[in-house]
Amino acid sequence: MNTTIETILNHRSIREFKDTKLTDEQIHTIISAAQQASTSSYMMAYTIIGITDPAKKAALAEVSGHPHVTQNGHLLIFCADLKRPIQQATNKQYQQMLPNLENSEHFLVSAIDAALAAQNAAIAAESMGLGMCYLGSIRNNLARTDEILGLPQHVIPLFGMALGVPDHQPEKKPRLPQSAIYFENEYPSFESDVEQFDEEIADYYQSRSTNNRKDTWSEQMIRRFSEPMRMDVTDLVQKKGFNKR
Amino acid sequence: MNTTIETILNHRSIREFKDTKLTDEQIHTIISAAQQASTSSYMMAYTIIGITDPAKKAALAEVSGHPHVTQNGHLLIFCADLKRPIQQATNKQYQQMLPNLENSEHFLVSAIDAALAAQNAAIAAESMGLGMCYLGSIRNNLARTDEILGLPQHVIPLFGMALGVPDHQPEKKPRLPQSAIYFENEYPSFESDVEQFDEEIADYYQSRSTNNRKDTWSEQMIRRFSEPMRMDVTDLVQKKGFNKR
Repeated sequence: MNTTIETILNHRSIREFKDTKLTDEQIHTIISAAQQASTSSYMMAYTIIGITDPAKKAALAEVSGHPHVTQNGHLLIFCADLKRPIQQATNKQYQQMLPNLENSEHFLVSAIDAALAAQNAAIAAESMGLGMCYLGSIRNNLARTDEILGLPQHVIPLFGMALGVPDHQPEKKPRLPQSAIYFENEYPSFESDVEQFDEEIADYYQSRSTNNRKDTWSEQMIRRFSEPMRMDVTDLVQKKGFNKR
Repeated sequence: MNTTIETILNHRSIREFKDTKLTDEQIHTIISAAQQASTSSYMMAYTIIGITDPAKKAALAEVSGHPHVTQNGHLLIFCADLKRPIQQATNKQYQQMLPNLENSEHFLVSAIDAALAAQNAAIAAESMGLGMCYLGSIRNNLARTDEILGLPQHVIPLFGMALGVPDHQPEKKPRLPQSAIYFENEYPSFESDVEQFDEEIADYYQSRSTNNRKDTWSEQMIRRFSEPMRMDVTDLVQKKGFNKR
């Protein structure tokens, strides 16, 4: 196994960081890695915003609810950006392209472009001995996050990433067995794999060093989907000119 | 610079592969890497389908229009999967969670989960000396791709990935300058960066060894968005229980 695969397989989300800021050189390397990810039709349909302003960090932490939004070595916000690719369009061209620009295909493209770039950033950071954690929680109030960042039309925040020098070493969280994620040629039934995973994960939750509890993966998922969550994401996304048709 | 960052920065999409199939061990390692990516709220809301059936490969190549859909060392299709997390729900629970499950938030979550996993797979493969190329082109006719794969409700194909031993070495494709992608604290104007990039990319297109032409990035993007594209993605996505509200 090579060191890159070791780095990838060793991933765990880090939520407690030492009080050490990333250097400009580290940030530059991480963003360069992000930029080299594949991009759909060369659109590079994403923007990354580094947050250093303490007031903005505090405001984002209020939306997110997580202390590691302020307590980290650096904070990145990954945005879907369909504005940049069309910024040289004339007004007439812009009006003509709106139905295309604002369809769900380009919502998908920009979200995927941003995620591919983000994962390159994550792996690059981890290969440098840093830790990271994604922050989907900036979507707890997406309109507020958008306002904090002051993003123009056709640019929306998607998720954050806290980076820094790890100050804890959590257990690696188990994943579903490969037989429940990867299939050949068709989508089969895999209920027994999930049931077996539920048993394993029950053991994991009962034995782990922090926040141990009685739970299974399936129970957790059913709770997750039974609570309406971020039902306002659609409104903001559409208001900003994404995913409208 | 460490070898992981070298691998990431050395990425170029490979579209011509030697006639060498990936071994089961290589596939297992690549999928393990994919699985270790972060996942929103532990949902693991994606499925990966490896295509080995020549008839299915040919059918997908017809949708995609690219020869490397059949001519590769292995072909993966990454799907958004909201079925797995809720498969243990009772019918009553399922009915109650539908508005939540089918909102744009969970469309986003599943697309991002799949993309994070895919980029781990890409980096793992490249670290092993393999090449890869994403295939957004399976969305040229998403209903047909869905039919070929026989995916159930709440599972949709998002993109493919061709993998294999590279049989060409294309130039590295330039990226926007970091000053047009990464900002601190706010979203500024960056028109001059894009104009400068347009000049650089005009040189790149005129000088590269294959498919050279007179073009800029902005012109290419305006053409891209001026042609309505994949306007049927919305229909299939919604029919399959994603992104409905």
